[in-house]
Amino acid sequence: MTKASITATPLPDIQSTGDRRKVAINKVGVTNVRYPISLRTPGKGQGNEFIHTVATINMFVSLPHDVKGTHMSRFLEVLNEYHEELSSDALPLVANRMKERLESEDAYLELNFPYFIDKQAPVSGQSGKLDFDVAFELASNGTDDFVMTLKIPATSLCPCSKEISDYGAHNQRCDMTVKVRMAEGVHLWIEELFGIVEQCASTQVFSVLKRPDEKWVTERAYENPKFVEDIVRDLAVALNNDDRIVWYQVSSENYESIHNHNAYAFIERDKREE
Amino acid sequence: MTKASITATPLPDIQSTGDRRKVAINKVGVTNVRYPISLRTPGKGQGNEFIHTVATINMFVSLPHDVKGTHMSRFLEVLNEYHEELSSDALPLVANRMKERLESEDAYLELNFPYFIDKQAPVSGQSGKLDFDVAFELASNGTDDFVMTLKIPATSLCPCSKEISDYGAHNQRCDMTVKVRMAEGVHLWIEELFGIVEQCASTQVFSVLKRPDEKWVTERAYENPKFVEDIVRDLAVALNNDDRIVWYQVSSENYESIHNHNAYAFIERDKREE
Amino acid sequence: MTKASITATPLPDIQSTGDRRKVAINKVGVTNVRYPISLRTPGKGQGNEFIHTVATINMFVSLPHDVKGTHMSRFLEVLNEYHEELSSDALPLVANRMKERLESEDAYLELNFPYFIDKQAPVSGQSGKLDFDVAFELASNGTDDFVMTLKIPATSLCPCSKEISDYGAHNQRCDMTVKVRMAEGVHLWIEELFGIVEQCASTQVFSVLKRPDEKWVTERAYENPKFVEDIVRDLAVALNNDDRIVWYQVSSENYESIHNHNAYAFIERDKREE
Amino acid sequence: MTKASITATPLPDIQSTGDRRKVAINKVGVTNVRYPISLRTPGKGQGNEFIHTVATINMFVSLPHDVKGTHMSRFLEVLNEYHEELSSDALPLVANRMKERLESEDAYLELNFPYFIDKQAPVSGQSGKLDFDVAFELASNGTDDFVMTLKIPATSLCPCSKEISDYGAHNQRCDMTVKVRMAEGVHLWIEELFGIVEQCASTQVFSVLKRPDEKWVTERAYENPKFVEDIVRDLAVALNNDDRIVWYQVSSENYESIHNHNAYAFIERDKREE
Repeated sequence: MTKASITATPLPDIQSTGDRRKVAINKVGVTNVRYPISLRTPGKGQGNEFIHTVATINMFVSLPHDVKGTHMSRFLEVLNEYHEELSSDALPLVANRMKERLESEDAYLELNFPYFIDKQAPVSGQSGKLDFDVAFELASNGTDDFVMTLKIPATSLCPCSKEISDYGAHNQRCDMTVKVRMAEGVHLWIEELFGIVEQCASTQVFSVLKRPDEKWVTERAYENPKFVEDIVRDLAVALNNDDRIVWYQVSSENYESIHNHNAYAFIERDKREE
Repeated sequence: MTKASITATPLPDIQSTGDRRKVAINKVGVTNVRYPISLRTPGKGQGNEFIHTVATINMFVSLPHDVKGTHMSRFLEVLNEYHEELSSDALPLVANRMKERLESEDAYLELNFPYFIDKQAPVSGQSGKLDFDVAFELASNGTDDFVMTLKIPATSLCPCSKEISDYGAHNQRCDMTVKVRMAEGVHLWIEELFGIVEQCASTQVFSVLKRPDEKWVTERAYENPKFVEDIVRDLAVALNNDDRIVWYQVSSENYESIHNHNAYAFIERDKREE
Repeated sequence: MTKASITATPLPDIQSTGDRRKVAINKVGVTNVRYPISLRTPGKGQGNEFIHTVATINMFVSLPHDVKGTHMSRFLEVLNEYHEELSSDALPLVANRMKERLESEDAYLELNFPYFIDKQAPVSGQSGKLDFDVAFELASNGTDDFVMTLKIPATSLCPCSKEISDYGAHNQRCDMTVKVRMAEGVHLWIEELFGIVEQCASTQVFSVLKRPDEKWVTERAYENPKFVEDIVRDLAVALNNDDRIVWYQVSSENYESIHNHNAYAFIERDKREE
Repeated sequence: MTKASITATPLPDIQSTGDRRKVAINKVGVTNVRYPISLRTPGKGQGNEFIHTVATINMFVSLPHDVKGTHMSRFLEVLNEYHEELSSDALPLVANRMKERLESEDAYLELNFPYFIDKQAPVSGQSGKLDFDVAFELASNGTDDFVMTLKIPATSLCPCSKEISDYGAHNQRCDMTVKVRMAEGVHLWIEELFGIVEQCASTQVFSVLKRPDEKWVTERAYENPKFVEDIVRDLAVALNNDDRIVWYQVSSENYESIHNHNAYAFIERDKREE
């Protein structure tokens, strides 16, 4: 088959035929699209440095009850246009382009990706990269509703174990997950939210720790015992005090070193409803 | 240390001390508890046969603002009491026991487990087990709100590919996920909901297929092409017509054989709000 | 189509046609088959109690260079016959049946499943189930080669952190993985190998721990610090001293509470080659 | 604590103390290190373009029987030095640096990462990125042994289903995994091996397919039915004919659209032993 022959006899467009079931579809699109992306970072205060990572992406539109199907290939075409700059600022542009290309009133965009922050060890000052998971979700259906999620690893040390034991205290890695909506017009860097969150556990985790650093984190954790309940409360207090955040869900999952299951706590608050 | 000495000098109960942050906790408890469970099945109409499987379980209570911590070991103690019968009917009992033991007003229970249904091949009649994922979620906070989720594998065959191609049509495994709330007083067996759902794709999948069966499913899929949009619409129509269901979310994820990403569609409806 | 018509006109058997590429296939079969199984346990010394769990199963045979394909449905038929008793003793029977039904000289069988052991808390004596992953692998190609793998969670406490810190020591959950081949004629219960392995970390993990138990495990871990290197060496020493074991691979993966990556060590030994 | 005080009183180095168990350790190091990396690509024939991706990395050394522990932080320090250029050519340099810094005779390096290749749709010529998993493994223990693994998605269409059915044929996504060792001195780009592998299934998968493209891949798959056995045999034949490859393992896992389990086949060949 040649390209010419295709142009000559257009193939039928089944998707654009009608549908009689009278059932509108909330979301239809593509999931699990793995894609290299670039994100703007605050860099040295200029906001013009970029980080390269790999995102797993979901893209949806809504579909009226009387249209049979959407055109799946167009989601990928939009992604191809925009992947060089998928910072949170750019998502409304992508959503608008999706609505335009897919002829839909609503667009939904979800990006999950590992992110990396350079952290210095607390005593030696040695630098290393801390990796954690970030999600961006934009629902553009009437208004643009943006939710940012960070899942940040840290250390928790059990206050009960410390109190009742003659020496030692069980401690473990935990994952603090913070999901936020910002006040209108507010831009929040991943780095800024990370800075708030990582203070809320018993101590932080690091990529490179030399012996003086290891002494420091060990003692800091022991001086600062926190139940999973304490961690989510401290997260809540920190976000309560930040006017840029108008809604949040915070949780912590602690991979208990003395059990094969995890301890978990969760708090949700919507400041707008109060 | 001897048991006697422990009894003599009780260890401090840090969890029961107060908290001054004025932050109540929505959910606190244990996650990722892997446990063997037994579930009642309809069997041969008597409802007194059991299926053995392994669940991954989350258990939570709420915590008032002025209590420092919950008592995590009690969740496991409650689970130990009840794991022999964790059918959906039994969950309110477990939730009540959690509230009692944990001294909480609210209890949340989530079970995820593989389930197995004996299916006969369509022509040869050969029997095999089809496995799929089930979730039970009970939120007991004022009222008892129960949600059942089934994720059922099937086959989807693309109508566009069939229409435009001189022969063949791309098809693939898909996962249909159905999440339902039932009308008050209604009991719905997993088997009943499964029976509704598995009709909604291009054809069903089976564990054992002999050649005449393979011919049957191949031709049936080709005669019955469905977009991911068609599948969720047919799921919605089926659940619309069933008065036992008052709320649902339905979705299908199709592992497209011509792409390395998936096609997805989603519909939600709450009949109670209409 | 009726069953009669199928019997009347047999469908062609493409799999049994020849192949000219002159390439024999080492393994061909089915993977990721999820199936409920029963396993014999030592119980109270009689070996006639059973545990129910769910296995993920792979089944393969070899295929000579001149045969086009194997008959996949027969793997499932064999599994249907034998799933009620898939203890390690029964695997050679299953492998023989596979060879017979699939007309092959070699059969390979891999089962992965969660297993559960009742453990009593160290002070309170409270009972709970500890879950861990087990794998059975049988290669029946000339001889029957059986490998058993246990992945057992435990606690590790860092000797360096303890030594250099004024108080506390970082500790974390670890997974010890032990893969063994037994001397000819030796039967080893999962429970027996578990009993050896769980002694080799800083302390054990438990499902239910009351406060006196938590004090016990916290102090025991602190008194018994071990690097990941110490854990695998202690595993190696334990298996070196057991004449029932003729080959092993041991490893430990420690989910460091101070990092977002893991520490790992691995030792392999074949006593038969010495 | 100030940096000065640390310098003044060096902390004890527990790792460097002796060990009396007489058990050498094959591999000890760090696992699951997530890190942004850059890889050289052939680009437009110059080999001086780079691709950015995120790797999950394991790094090990061996440890003599009489040394208690390795120094884990040094693995991360080496990674920090080299992550800007982790193409396969650079791995021996990294391994040498590991041996030097960790004072070990052996070094092992494993990188797993998603990779992306720009592919044009077969008729429309539209461009899109195909993602797939790549692994680099270098064992530097005496000699440098490098193994490259590609796991490439494609489409398989069942010859039996096609033959016995009046119309249609079941097809599905499959993952072809190819693991190779190269002849001494040979450099093989990921792109080159990909080009060989993607020819071996019924047809290729693409990121963006317009209707004429979808017609093309549907018909191509139907014209080119292959069992999982055919796919691995065609992979074996292709690698048999390539003198740059001296050892390989090839497999295909087909996510059968008519079952909830997968079909799998595997071939291994070492040309050096013949």
